[in-house]
Amino acid sequence: MSALLSSTPRKDGFYMPGEFEPHDGCWMIWPERPDNWRLGAKPAQKAFAEVASVISRFENVTMCVSAQQFRNARHLLPPQVRVVEMSNNDSWMRDCGPTFVIDKNGNVRGVDWEFNAWGGLEDGLYFPWDMDAQIAQKVLEIERIDRYKASNFVLEGGSIHVDGEGTLITTEECLLNPNRNPHLSKEEIENHLIEYLNVEKIIWLGKGVYNDETNGHVDNLCCFIRPGVIALTWTDDTNDPQYEISSDAYRRLATSTDAQGRKFEIHKIHQPGPIYLTKEESQGVDEVEGTLPRQEGDRMAASYVNFYLANGAAIVPTFNLPTDAPALHTLQQLMPERQVIGIYAREILLGGGNIHCITQQQPKPHKG
Amino acid sequence: MSALLSSTPRKDGFYMPGEFEPHDGCWMIWPERPDNWRLGAKPAQKAFAEVASVISRFENVTMCVSAQQFRNARHLLPPQVRVVEMSNNDSWMRDCGPTFVIDKNGNVRGVDWEFNAWGGLEDGLYFPWDMDAQIAQKVLEIERIDRYKASNFVLEGGSIHVDGEGTLITTEECLLNPNRNPHLSKEEIENHLIEYLNVEKIIWLGKGVYNDETNGHVDNLCCFIRPGVIALTWTDDTNDPQYEISSDAYRRLATSTDAQGRKFEIHKIHQPGPIYLTKEESQGVDEVEGTLPRQEGDRMAASYVNFYLANGAAIVPTFNLPTDAPALHTLQQLMPERQVIGIYAREILLGGGNIHCITQQQPKPHKG
Repeated sequence: MSALLSSTPRKDGFYMPGEFEPHDGCWMIWPERPDNWRLGAKPAQKAFAEVASVISRFENVTMCVSAQQFRNARHLLPPQVRVVEMSNNDSWMRDCGPTFVIDKNGNVRGVDWEFNAWGGLEDGLYFPWDMDAQIAQKVLEIERIDRYKASNFVLEGGSIHVDGEGTLITTEECLLNPNRNPHLSKEEIENHLIEYLNVEKIIWLGKGVYNDETNGHVDNLCCFIRPGVIALTWTDDTNDPQYEISSDAYRRLATSTDAQGRKFEIHKIHQPGPIYLTKEESQGVDEVEGTLPRQEGDRMAASYVNFYLANGAAIVPTFNLPTDAPALHTLQQLMPERQVIGIYAREILLGGGNIHCITQQQPKPHKG
Repeated sequence: MSALLSSTPRKDGFYMPGEFEPHDGCWMIWPERPDNWRLGAKPAQKAFAEVASVISRFENVTMCVSAQQFRNARHLLPPQVRVVEMSNNDSWMRDCGPTFVIDKNGNVRGVDWEFNAWGGLEDGLYFPWDMDAQIAQKVLEIERIDRYKASNFVLEGGSIHVDGEGTLITTEECLLNPNRNPHLSKEEIENHLIEYLNVEKIIWLGKGVYNDETNGHVDNLCCFIRPGVIALTWTDDTNDPQYEISSDAYRRLATSTDAQGRKFEIHKIHQPGPIYLTKEESQGVDEVEGTLPRQEGDRMAASYVNFYLANGAAIVPTFNLPTDAPALHTLQQLMPERQVIGIYAREILLGGGNIHCITQQQPKPHKG
């Protein structure tokens, strides 16, 4: 009951709306693999449950859970969170889930990208990823939403941000990485984005957050608060490798205009930390061949802009650091129409991402 | 998103409607276990796909499929059938699925019975049945339908039929079998049925169809065409053990009245066969300890009344036998308002049941 469409969203008048637009709900995947999440994923499950619980105060939440964890997840989640069985290799719904597109007539469809676990057999973070690769289709089946399959085009949802008015932001580090689509030129990659997301203008940033294992997903570096307004992770420490990365992004954004011809209003959000993996944290993770190891002293790609915009709220990762309060304060000033809520998210960060990476919004299509 | 209710349907004004009332859709489970379905379940999958395909011409169909079979099922089913991942031990949605109940205000809820694979550790047909036991809850989660848990009460949906006007029919062979609820008296069992299905009168038949491995499910013996009208499987062969069973059922029905005080109109549908398992069929099934074996010469519990009523249709099992045409003819005369469609169903019968056993209707609640 999710028909496979042979066209593209652009040809059919469908486009990806901004995350700040109204949602029907939010999709997540329950964490469990002990070679990525410490202590049998119990601390991560607690954090995911809190994220789901908070988002469910603002919109529908569906948690996708393996058969093995179904009862445990159902037990740990509040009743208003829907729990559905779905096999997975890990819990990054932003990246393996569908990208929803809408049209002006109140219809919604989904884009099912190719997924290769952030780099395939060479650089991928684990093997296999066969169950993750089916998540998008399974989500769309449950919702009876028709599906575009972007065949031969590897993309993760976290590697793009759109303003819903024709502009897309991404990074060269990720989208031009030979571990994603080595068979495509930059222009061909742009054409895929234009066809499947129905955007008019693509803004290329350079690198993502320092040491980000996703090869620099844009959603950890910056995001749209609304069309024309961007939050960018920042540091004033010129000795930190993040300084050059954020400065370069700032320069590129400051000298660009969006699809509507507007200059960007850019707000710097000072990064937390740097934050490093502790020995205890490292020792809680199973050592498994083929999975990215979690080693003591690893610098983690922590960022406040990895937040999720729910209906009427922004759910922001915090780290019990002095940088938390200013970040939340700035974001609340930027979004007076939303309730800005911080959630302590170090346990999510330990797995390689944060709140934006573990969520995927399903937009509520609106007419006219 | 399926709240667990602490009340009962009767207390809340919910009741089970007749199968002949309007449906929102139909639920099924994809067959796959090679120790029950011959030749790796490929012939059964073809038959299930045909049943799903035909029903989907009349109402929504959702097929629940294990992760291993997801792509294969999606490939073999028509696009209008929704496919969702759901672990299972076998494919009898009638028996392990939820029983839906409705109220007069347009609301729907589900009853989640205890399931013990038709007899538990002593007489059950396979072990384990842990995944089947979660099917009802998972279906209700997907639909965001609240759930009554009938704790400590084992029941399969195929062991009861209701007319939606206060009458329930069942068999002593099944519901009073010590392999189901040995801790409950007959009166306590009746009280559970009254509380969870909100019926007023329970009519007890004796045995189900001869050699039925479900311990005599009523849905293989007889069913409601509409309130007051019953189809009963029959044979005129006094040497067939089915003769005494059907005669006894006829006598009990003929001397009963329903909850509204009506006498029953009883229509005999002559059984097919007898039908026996062939050597070739037996050899196609894996021998596994703990699973009921399928042996050459086994008499199968074939019956035409094991049909499914979809919106505007009746989907009836056929067996390529001379008895098919008269059975279809009689049923069409009894249901002029429905399209009566026969589907060759020997492959379903080989697994131990038929079209009614593999389907479960989700009613469309109506107001007033």
